[in-house]
Amino acid sequence: MGIDPGRVLLNATELTEEVSMSSSNHSSVVSLNLFVALLCACIVMGHLLEESRWKNESITALAIGLCTGTIILVTTGGKSSRLLVFSEDLFFIYLLPPIIFNAGFQVKKKRFFRNFMTIMLFGTVGTLISFGIISYGAIHIFRRMKIDVGDFLAIGAIFSATDSVCTLQVLNQEETPLLHSLVFGEGMVNDAMSVVLFNAIQRFDLTNINSIIALEFIGNFLCLFILSTTLGILAGLLSAFIIKKLYFGRHSTDREVALMILMAYLSYMVAELFHLSAILTVFFCGIVMSHYTWHNVTESSRVTTKHTFATLSFVAETFIFMYVGMDALDIEKWRIVKNSPGKSIGVSSILLVLILIGRAAFVFPLSFFSNLTKHGKSERIGLNYQVTIWWAGLMRGAVSMALAYNQFTRSNEKFRDDAFMITSTITVVLFSTLVFGFLTKPLVKILLPSPPNVLVASEPSIPKSVMEPLLLGIDDPEADQDPYRPSGLRMILSMPSNTVHYYWRKFDDAVMRPVFGGRGFVPFVPISPTDPDDVHQWH
Amino acid sequence: MGIDPGRVLLNATELTEEVSMSSSNHSSVVSLNLFVALLCACIVMGHLLEESRWKNESITALAIGLCTGTIILVTTGGKSSRLLVFSEDLFFIYLLPPIIFNAGFQVKKKRFFRNFMTIMLFGTVGTLISFGIISYGAIHIFRRMKIDVGDFLAIGAIFSATDSVCTLQVLNQEETPLLHSLVFGEGMVNDAMSVVLFNAIQRFDLTNINSIIALEFIGNFLCLFILSTTLGILAGLLSAFIIKKLYFGRHSTDREVALMILMAYLSYMVAELFHLSAILTVFFCGIVMSHYTWHNVTESSRVTTKHTFATLSFVAETFIFMYVGMDALDIEKWRIVKNSPGKSIGVSSILLVLILIGRAAFVFPLSFFSNLTKHGKSERIGLNYQVTIWWAGLMRGAVSMALAYNQFTRSNEKFRDDAFMITSTITVVLFSTLVFGFLTKPLVKILLPSPPNVLVASEPSIPKSVMEPLLLGIDDPEADQDPYRPSGLRMILSMPSNTVHYYWRKFDDAVMRPVFGGRGFVPFVPISPTDPDDVHQWH
Repeated sequence: MGIDPGRVLLNATELTEEVSMSSSNHSSVVSLNLFVALLCACIVMGHLLEESRWKNESITALAIGLCTGTIILVTTGGKSSRLLVFSEDLFFIYLLPPIIFNAGFQVKKKRFFRNFMTIMLFGTVGTLISFGIISYGAIHIFRRMKIDVGDFLAIGAIFSATDSVCTLQVLNQEETPLLHSLVFGEGMVNDAMSVVLFNAIQRFDLTNINSIIALEFIGNFLCLFILSTTLGILAGLLSAFIIKKLYFGRHSTDREVALMILMAYLSYMVAELFHLSAILTVFFCGIVMSHYTWHNVTESSRVTTKHTFATLSFVAETFIFMYVGMDALDIEKWRIVKNSPGKSIGVSSILLVLILIGRAAFVFPLSFFSNLTKHGKSERIGLNYQVTIWWAGLMRGAVSMALAYNQFTRSNEKFRDDAFMITSTITVVLFSTLVFGFLTKPLVKILLPSPPNVLVASEPSIPKSVMEPLLLGIDDPEADQDPYRPSGLRMILSMPSNTVHYYWRKFDDAVMRPVFGGRGFVPFVPISPTDPDDVHQWH
Repeated sequence: MGIDPGRVLLNATELTEEVSMSSSNHSSVVSLNLFVALLCACIVMGHLLEESRWKNESITALAIGLCTGTIILVTTGGKSSRLLVFSEDLFFIYLLPPIIFNAGFQVKKKRFFRNFMTIMLFGTVGTLISFGIISYGAIHIFRRMKIDVGDFLAIGAIFSATDSVCTLQVLNQEETPLLHSLVFGEGMVNDAMSVVLFNAIQRFDLTNINSIIALEFIGNFLCLFILSTTLGILAGLLSAFIIKKLYFGRHSTDREVALMILMAYLSYMVAELFHLSAILTVFFCGIVMSHYTWHNVTESSRVTTKHTFATLSFVAETFIFMYVGMDALDIEKWRIVKNSPGKSIGVSSILLVLILIGRAAFVFPLSFFSNLTKHGKSERIGLNYQVTIWWAGLMRGAVSMALAYNQFTRSNEKFRDDAFMITSTITVVLFSTLVFGFLTKPLVKILLPSPPNVLVASEPSIPKSVMEPLLLGIDDPEADQDPYRPSGLRMILSMPSNTVHYYWRKFDDAVMRPVFGGRGFVPFVPISPTDPDDVHQWH
């Protein structure tokens, strides 16, 4: 039981075998039951812990996953260990897309694009610095292990991949808007960068870097970045155009919702198909969809999509953390490592220190350079901000796990060292998520006691609602609509990015919105497409 | 790529192999892309064809599936035939649950329960009659084929399984409420019946039926029916209780939505786990959730769940029909059959005739018996209704396909006859869906020209909205709320089912609603949990 379309289409022979084996199906149903029941438990627990000061849903899910893993391990007498091996595909094909799409859909667009240059600097140069330091450190410290240079570079890439999912959970877009857009935006670019880095490790001989290889590398990155972004934007625009032209709401709300979800997923899968950065694609698709498509659909579709995307993302996040928790008990790997606990702890500690140093080595210098280009004092990234950015990006998560399994699951000859690397990755992921993640909220409260409206002074501070923390992030109509607000006038004159924003707004109103719809540009609705039941509820 | 949680947990060895094989992943991504793109195409086509008189989304999807299958077959030179083999698991674990749950969630509860006895009669006795006639006919006509008695009984069960999905698409709950509840309700019970039949075929020696076996059979069915229903009701009540007690809306809308979806899915999977009729379970879970849970959640969650369930169901339906269409070109099986086209056509035609006879043999007599028990003329099932019920239940769909693949995919010795049975099933499914399905709408228009409010005279005829045909089915507040309406008073005195309804309502108000919530029994909401954006839209 439990076969997905792609797989089904591929392995027909295996499939027909499986249809006849109803006994194996049964244990698969058991695991699905377990997973769904645990997800329910996570949701209820998360709700109950909501008021706790240390609230962090990911940690709850991780803890539940770890407990369940232990229980399974104990009840089966340590046999069913490999039942719980991390699946790269499950993660990249099904769990990650809704999370990143929702992030794009609900990101504060204006703030994101205003900090675009800083985000790009952190994401590209920062990731490279971090990658370099971790690889260099690993090469020198782990010299005795039987792994080659390619593996050390892979270690650099694995531990440079920030966990955007965890960042989203720990940093609140309302409470710490600048930090959120910087750290999360960096995570997006970081992903594109790691795709390029991985390809580069496989294709180039990185031990002899010369200027041509470096240029090719930069060209590769730019190409990948532009193609991925364009694909996402095109997919978003296409969905807006289709829904606006054909006026879907006339017949059925469900078609609109289905089309939005399917088009977004399609953009992700097409990007995967062409080995682009699917994360970047679906992120920009989400931004475009929230800017155009969302305004073209009926009222009930708007409420539905907004909440559905948030729910999907929420469930996927919970699932990932639970899964990582359950998966951490890969007992066969741990057994290999068991005989040399000192080495195991040593490797993990060294990696954690390298991560700390690697991140510090780019956050502080790059913030300094970024501050040099800013004119107003309110524009600059203060030291307390720098420390928080450094800290909030330390978590490593499912992406690192997936990359580690990809790199270190090979032929048996290197089995022992591969096992070391995988258990170390698991340790680093668990430690960073649990400890660093746990401490981030208190740290933010200590370092940034007041609501940080320093940099984005022109935007009104939105009253924080206790009710729907996850959803308030959706675009604030007033802030996006009018670039001429009194306090913003000074900024237009002083800031080039605001000028860009001004011309973009003019272009958007003159060319884009008439074609693709968007706020105020949707056709007149003759009959309210909301059904009587809905209306009844709202009036 | 593309592994689901259940599977992942099972085949870890296979998984690690797969992680390293990135080339096979790529073709899997291609098929996923193809599927999602085709789904988008189906939705757009379905929208464009909406105004057509012959509109039937399932036929569009089936046609697109067939075309794509042909194109793939031609482009790959007939090689990739087995890429498209029907997956029982994909269907039963992922596609069917949302469809049936949504049907339960949006069913008109009062009308369904008023016709409960007739539905049960059709579903149990009717399915048995149909099963008997088709099996008997097959045994006598197909005597020459090398298949044993068990197979003939399986043929009876396969072709007695009505296609609830197609029924839902062809019959409109608004236009033909009585027909919809009868035919669809029958389909629900029919499913429970076929599970029991299949178990019976495997466990008992049905060639020598005696009274003890018959009693055991009846006992089995009752046990299965009651257990499945109870499980569904308990799951629904549990979700209502949790959401009401813990007051989820206080913190997050997403948790409510996620919990409802997960609990419903969990009820389905638990039923699968204990070999109950999962369809029946999730159907009753949907009914209970729409009666209690739905009223306990926040306003935005109500809109979201209603539309999300409808969208999920819609996408799953489209997917199934497209998949059946693509799958129909199982070229290896067709090659075997190719040499004897006469026999192939013969088998399919005989099966179709048997289906027609088998259904006629129970619809008309059972309607007659049902009419004997009814007092008022308005209560009876007229001849035009009987003909429509007969016709609307003729379609065979994905359930028949799944059962046929399950039964006729065995060792190679019987390969030829098995291939015959599978191609015949495909032919019957395609023919019945395309031809019978195509003709149902016109037939309904000819046989029942006026809005058929004959039997449910007490319910006000709800104005038909053009906008959201799929969603209007949700419970009509007035009809459910008050059993004392003037025209209904006479019916309470004359009809036992209305008396049952009256006492149920009293019990519901006194015991159930105070505990589990429901309309009018939800706690006072101090702050509207809808976020400002939502409110802005509705006022």
